This record gives sequence, structure tokens and C-alpha cells, in this order.
Amino acid sequence: MDTLNVFDFLDRIVKLIKEEHILNPQEANKVIEYVDPHDLKNKIDLSLAAPCANLEELEAVCRDIIKYSIKTNSAKFHNQLYGGTDLYGLGATWLAESLNTNQHTFEVAPVFSLVELELLEEVKKLLGYTQGDGIFSPGGSISNMYGMVLARYKKFPETKTKGLHGLPVLVAFTSEEGHYSLQKSAQWLGLGTDNLVKIKTDNFGRMIAEELEKAIISRKAQGHVPFFVNATAGTTVVGAIDPLDKIADICERHQLWLHIDACYGGTLLLSKNFKERLEASHRSDSFAWNPHKMLGAPLQCSIFITRHNNILHECNSASAVYLFQQDKFYDVSYDTGDKSIQCGRKVDGFKLWVMWKARGKAGFASLVDNAIDCANYFRSKISNLEGFRLVQDEFETTAVCFWYIPRSMRSGKEDAEWWKKMNNVAPAIKEKLVKSGKLMIGYSPLVHRGFCNFFRMITTCHPVPTYSDMDYVIEQIKQIGEVM
Amino acid sequence: MDTLNVFDFLDRIVKLIKEEHILNPQEANKVIEYVDPHDLKNKIDLSLAAPCANLEELEAVCRDIIKYSIKTNSAKFHNQLYGGTDLYGLGATWLAESLNTNQHTFEVAPVFSLVELELLEEVKKLLGYTQGDGIFSPGGSISNMYGMVLARYKKFPETKTKGLHGLPVLVAFTSEEGHYSLQKSAQWLGLGTDNLVKIKTDNFGRMIAEELEKAIISRKAQGHVPFFVNATAGTTVVGAIDPLDKIADICERHQLWLHIDACYGGTLLLSKNFKERLEASHRSDSFAWNPHKMLGAPLQCSIFITRHNNILHECNSASAVYLFQQDKFYDVSYDTGDKSIQCGRKVDGFKLWVMWKARGKAGFASLVDNAIDCANYFRSKISNLEGFRLVQDEFETTAVCFWYIPRSMRSGKEDAEWWKKMNNVAPAIKEKLVKSGKLMIGYSPLVHRGFCNFFRMITTCHPVPTYSDMDYVIEQIKQIGEVM
Repeated sequence: MDTLNVFDFLDRIVKLIKEEHILNPQEANKVIEYVDPHDLKNKIDLSLAAPCANLEELEAVCRDIIKYSIKTNSAKFHNQLYGGTDLYGLGATWLAESLNTNQHTFEVAPVFSLVELELLEEVKKLLGYTQGDGIFSPGGSISNMYGMVLARYKKFPETKTKGLHGLPVLVAFTSEEGHYSLQKSAQWLGLGTDNLVKIKTDNFGRMIAEELEKAIISRKAQGHVPFFVNATAGTTVVGAIDPLDKIADICERHQLWLHIDACYGGTLLLSKNFKERLEASHRSDSFAWNPHKMLGAPLQCSIFITRHNNILHECNSASAVYLFQQDKFYDVSYDTGDKSIQCGRKVDGFKLWVMWKARGKAGFASLVDNAIDCANYFRSKISNLEGFRLVQDEFETTAVCFWYIPRSMRSGKEDAEWWKKMNNVAPAIKEKLVKSGKLMIGYSPLVHRGFCNFFRMITTCHPVPTYSDMDYVIEQIKQIGEVM
Repeated sequence: MDTLNVFDFLDRIVKLIKEEHILNPQEANKVIEYVDPHDLKNKIDLSLAAPCANLEELEAVCRDIIKYSIKTNSAKFHNQLYGGTDLYGLGATWLAESLNTNQHTFEVAPVFSLVELELLEEVKKLLGYTQGDGIFSPGGSISNMYGMVLARYKKFPETKTKGLHGLPVLVAFTSEEGHYSLQKSAQWLGLGTDNLVKIKTDNFGRMIAEELEKAIISRKAQGHVPFFVNATAGTTVVGAIDPLDKIADICERHQLWLHIDACYGGTLLLSKNFKERLEASHRSDSFAWNPHKMLGAPLQCSIFITRHNNILHECNSASAVYLFQQDKFYDVSYDTGDKSIQCGRKVDGFKLWVMWKARGKAGFASLVDNAIDCANYFRSKISNLEGFRLVQDEFETTAVCFWYIPRSMRSGKEDAEWWKKMNNVAPAIKEKLVKSGKLMIGYSPLVHRGFCNFFRMITTCHPVPTYSDMDYVIEQIKQIGEVM
């Protein structure tokens, strides 16, 4: 292939991003140009057997890749807890990627080390932590795992060197609507998934605190050692916020580490109107928040934070002498890498920093308030619409979960047979929506509440949602569902 | 701040990247504009207390951030196992970041799912695996942890649900020059660092296979259960490649999982001339390779691969119904997320794919051969130069480790006192190099071999190194070291 001048390819990429309207999709454009996986292989030349002959060919393949990729920056994308990106954050990633470095030492990341510190200080303030430490991690699952590791270390510091051998059974707790990463953490860390107890939730998806305490007592009676409770602020499906204050009381009584998985709901802390929902956050021992979800930081951007000083370092340090030399000529307390489970660590904080520097807390607040306002508008509107039925009356974050009942089923008797049929409705509507490229919206069952498949509508800060975007979603579902 | 049009900020960022020569540093420019951490806080307005007033202000701060950041794309950067980026890879990150999605389902990452599959197929071929599975992970440490988790699951599948409780002591093995992430894995996974046995290395930093077998037998005699051996292909400091074939024999004899940490050395597989050094790779059970190191894929790009089909899924699946619905309308075997410890997973494969598509295997081979050739030139040149002393005669990858002996010390008796003094030489020279902005090069001791601080010179594929870059490094060290 041609010899490459520095901006030959980069300029083409920027041109493609503009020409294909990735960041500002035209209203008429599809959110997805759906092709079945087996056929998609034939639509794009993804084979690496032979390289492209020249830049034109490479550009053409990239254009195909864009064509068949999801446009998360589209107002028609409501499929996940994340959506489009904040453009300030995106610009920051382009810059950080170009500077290609690691977050592990001040030596290679002087500015980015200070940026991370500044962010952690601000996040501590948001939470109401008066001290503590933190780290950016590659996603919420790993942030939650950090919480469990620190909790284990706090209770049994000898596990660092001796492992779990000879210890009693250690037990962790989360709600039955908590995220599956807690389960994976329990597995990886050697507790086993049987020793992650899933506590019953109420009709709004919130952990029942009394059930938690019962479970703790019951496990203790078996000679097991409870050590960790995960409370969720923004469950994955309905966006529920566990009763944090009550759970904190229980954790205090039983001396358990309280971790809050606020990967989704943590963004509410930025809203003047809604931050009180997370009021008890300052009572947690650790806290996970993903600005790459509701707030629209480009993926990945996840913060793990603990109110205990030094424990991240004490627990995780391996003191590798080739990297964290103690005879460096600068203050090595700025080298953060030994607190991490990673060695190389991507510069994830900088995008959040640029967003924050550009918008300020007030700017964030109005974006968050708007996302919630649109979710409320959506909920309120469908609650009076024929064919739509909310799975619960109220929601605490930006998720709105509902069934759509096709006209032909509306007068039917709602017996087991009827619900079995309903279970196929959301997947069938979704299939049509995706294949037409008109809308992407998630669905899920909630088995333990006896709920078959329902839609989960999500609003995020970017692209900035409007009421008319909400109306559009309702209209699309109706158009297909009505005639099923 | 101003209302933002889509490209207002992005165009400014591209302009800054060009104007500040981040990707093509001018020869006269510094690799670093060093400022002490405490002073740096005062040089750039990093405070988030108040937002910028307008885009001009934000651009000015970004320009400062560039000024004080490390230029890893400079020919003067040899500080880490990574360096500058492949510009094809960089363009790919700009595009992938703009498309802002997750690798976890085909639903949200149709093309990127196929891209990952294609890459894994090619990597399997490189390794000589005839089957298997893999995943892109957020760095080598976590890739190595995947290996240890799978090994544990293979031996004791019940650990997934029951944990380690009631099991005998499980033991893992690596060399004393293996990466510290193995230690962190042993800790997190509940083995404890005492149960990661560090096997003695020879004079070239390679694990002594006979010592490994002795250690396995000795632990077995204590009633412990060895289950995992990590062999390193490219150790962090001297770039040593463990005797893979011999270690594979031992693993076979004792039925242990063989993981190869080839995060650094895996890139040699792309070179026709050097791939034989990793010849026995196909005998491993799992393998970790970071294209973000020698090959210059933008950070992060790490591949974990295993030759066992299905085990990634069996071991790690949690079957979250909200995400991995089995009633989707497409072939859900394309949803890779449940194999992962992460939930959201960054699109890391695409950059490697674009690089590969642009350059082909032949293009990669010539870049890798050039990096090794430059390292050999460097080694060969300093081996005849007064004041330079290699810490070992030969190196197997692109690291060259050496002491620089200042003129004033050259005739001294090399007793304990002399070596104590030598220990300060590399840090002192480095301080001057960094503060002048002329060169960044790493140093390290190797305590178990009795070696005090020495320099570690690294060459990577990007920016494409030349002999004259090598001469420059030698010259800079001499200029400062000579007169100490």
C-alpha cells in the first residue's frame, strides 16, 4: 500500500464521519441498516487474507463499516443504558488517543495524572465523601469487582498473600435485580456464585432491606462470614434505587462493606433536582459510577471510588520495581498504577474532564434534568394510551418499562396462555423496528417478578432528547404493534 | 458556554493535533516539557470549579495540556514497551469512538462483532491453534487473569458456584522475571500471592524449566494442587522468552494449564524471521498478546485467546436475560458478551483490523523486522563503546539493557561501594534527560540477579525507528553520563 503521510488517513476518516452524518444523523436516516450476521459477511470485505491495494479501497471499506454499524448518536437509539456521545468528550478522546499513553505513572501521563486527581476530588464532593481514593477502571463490572476485592481485604487482609484457603465461607449480598457483574465478581474472586445472595425486591425493583438483614443473620447462623453488600442505584432493567440509608444502617450493624453500584444512577448526583435520590451515598464504603452511561461520556468511562484512604494501594500494590521505582526524581505519590489491577491503563478520565470543563456542573445538571424530564413525559404519556401498560407506576431514573398489547389481544382474558403470547410481542415488534431501521429499543423479562418480555425505554443526555423524540418512539411501536 | 455545533470542537481538536505536531514531532521538539507535579498544577488551569467561558478558552487549555504531555509519537520516546501509534490504527479509533458502541452484542456491534471474529481467526492461525476462542480485553493484566480463571475452572468447574472453599491450596507458577500481573491475579482470584511460585531464571532471564518441575513436585508433596503455569514470551525488563517447548512438556506431564504471557513478544509472530522464537505457542492452553505494545496499535488493544472451544463461555457466562436474550431474531452465537468478565466492552479490535487490512501480514513483518533490526544495531553498537556495558550478551525481543559507566568510575574497583554508586547513575542521567526533554528511556534493577539500576532501551514499530535514532539515544546518554 502507499506510503502514508501523517494525515492522509486521518483526514479521510474525519471526512467520512462528516459525510456519513455519524454524529448528527439526518432525521430520515436509519438507526441501523440491518443485515443478518451470515449475510453481513458478504456485504463487507472483512477478510484479512489480503490487504487493501490503496487508501481509496480502505476508505471504501470503512464507508461500508459505517453503513452497517449502529448509529448510537441517533435520536432513534434507546437500546442500552448508553447512547450518543458528548461531543466535548469525543474531541477529548481524539486528542487522548493521539497522545497515546498510559495512566499508570506521572512519568508518562503528567497532565492526565493531575486530571484524574482533580476528577476524583470533584466526585468525592458530589458523593459527600470527606476523604478517600479512586481510580478509573475499564467499565462498571470491574469497578464493582474492585469494591468486592477491597471489602475482602478489609475483613481479611491476609487473603492478599494466603488466599481464601482455610477461611470460612465468605458471603456477599445484592438484590435480585442487581447487575450480573456481581455474580461474575463472586466467581472470579473465588467466593462462588452460591455465596452471592440475591435479596428479594419490592414492586419497584428495590431491595427489601428487611430481607437483607434476615439473609445476613441466616448466613451467619450457618457459620458463614458476610462481608460485602452491593446496593444498586439504578438497576439495569427498571432503574430502581435501593433504600441506601436503610441498607447502610444494616451494614453498620453487621460491620459489612457497603458498595453502591451507581454505574447507571450515579449521574443523578449531577442534578440539583434528583441528587437527593442518592443522598445516603456518603455512607458507602465504595461507589461505582459510569459517566459513559446516562451522561454520554464516550465509552469507556467508569469511576471506582472508596472513602477509605490508602486501601486501594495497600490491597493492590505489587511494587513492581521496573515501573514504580521509588528512586524517581519526582514525588512518586503521583504514580497511581500500583493501586490498579491493570498495568497499562487507558486515559479514560480526560474525556469527562473536558466535558466538565466545557459545561460545568450547571451544564451537566440541565442535561440530566432534561433526560429525566423526557423519560417522565414518556411515562406519563403512555400511561394514558390504549395498548400501553407500565410494568410499574413509578420509575426512579430514566428507564420506563412497559408492555405493548396489540389491539387483537386487548379484550382477551389475561391468563397464562395470554401472557405466553404477550411474551412474544416485544421481540416481534423489535424485530420489525430493527429491520426497518426506525428504532432500537431494548426488551427484557423480569422472571422473579413473573413478568414476561416488556420494552425498556431509556433516555440519556446525548443526543439531547426532546418530547418529539419521545412521541416518535411511541408512534413507531404503535404502528407495528397495532396490527399484530 | 456557547451552543455547540457538531464539529465546532472536533475541528479545533484536529487543528491542535496538527499545529502541535503531536503525530509527527519536529526533530527539534522535546519529547517532554518537564514540570514537577506540584508546579504543573499552576501551569494549567485544571480546576473544575468553574467551566471555560467559551471554546477559545477550552482550546487554550487543551493546547497547554498538549504542551505538557509526553510525545509518545516522538523518536525520542523509548520509555515503555509501547510507543507511538500506527496511524491506521489511530484513524480507526477516531471512527470507533465516534460510533460509540459496545462490543457485547451483535445487536449493537454488528460489524465490530464480525471484525473481532475475523481477527481471532487470524490470530489462531498465527499461533497454530486449530480451534479455540478468544476475546479482546482491557490490557495484558486482565488477559493473564482470564488465563488463570479458565485454568481454575478447567480443573475445578465447581469453583464457579462453590468458590474455593474446601478445596486444597491451588498453586500457580511463573518465572521471577514474569509480569507482576500474575501476582495480582493470584491475589484477586483468591489463591494468595504466596501460592504464585516464582521460578528461578537463567542468565538471560528465561525460566529454568527444571526448576519449574522441581517446584511443582515440591508443592504436590505438600498436598497442594498445581494447576497453572505462566510462561513469558518477552519479559518486561529484558524481553526474555521462556523455553516454551520444555515448559509445555512439563505441563503435559503434570496436567497443568499452560498460559503464555506474550503481551510483549507476541508481535514476533508477525515476523517471518523471528516467529520461530515462539514456535511452541500452539502447545499452550491460552495466550495473551498486546498489539498495543511493539506493534503500535493505539492503547488499549489486548487479545486473550484459548485453544479450548466453549470454555470462555462455560466459565464466564451469567446469562443475563436483559442483554443476552435467547429469543432474539438473529443467531445469538454472535453475541460475545457473556464470555467476558466485563459487561460493556470497548471496541478494541477494530484498530488492529484496520492496521492489518492496510498493511497486510507482509507490512507488519517488515515493521517488526525493522524494530528488531534497530534494537540489534543498538546492542551491537554499544557493545563496543567505552562506558556502555550490556547486562547480558543477547536479547530475544526489542529490549536492550545496559549500564552506563561514567568516565570517572571506569577505572574504579567494582566492589559493593562501586555498584552502590552505579545504582544512582541511571536515575541521575534519566533525570537530566527528562528535564532537558531530549530523551525518555526506562531503567530498572533486577534484584534477584543482583543487578543494580540499568537502562532499558526499547524499540517499537512506530514511529518507525532508524539507525540514526539509535545513535541519537547513545549520544544523549554519553553527553550527560560522560561528565558525571
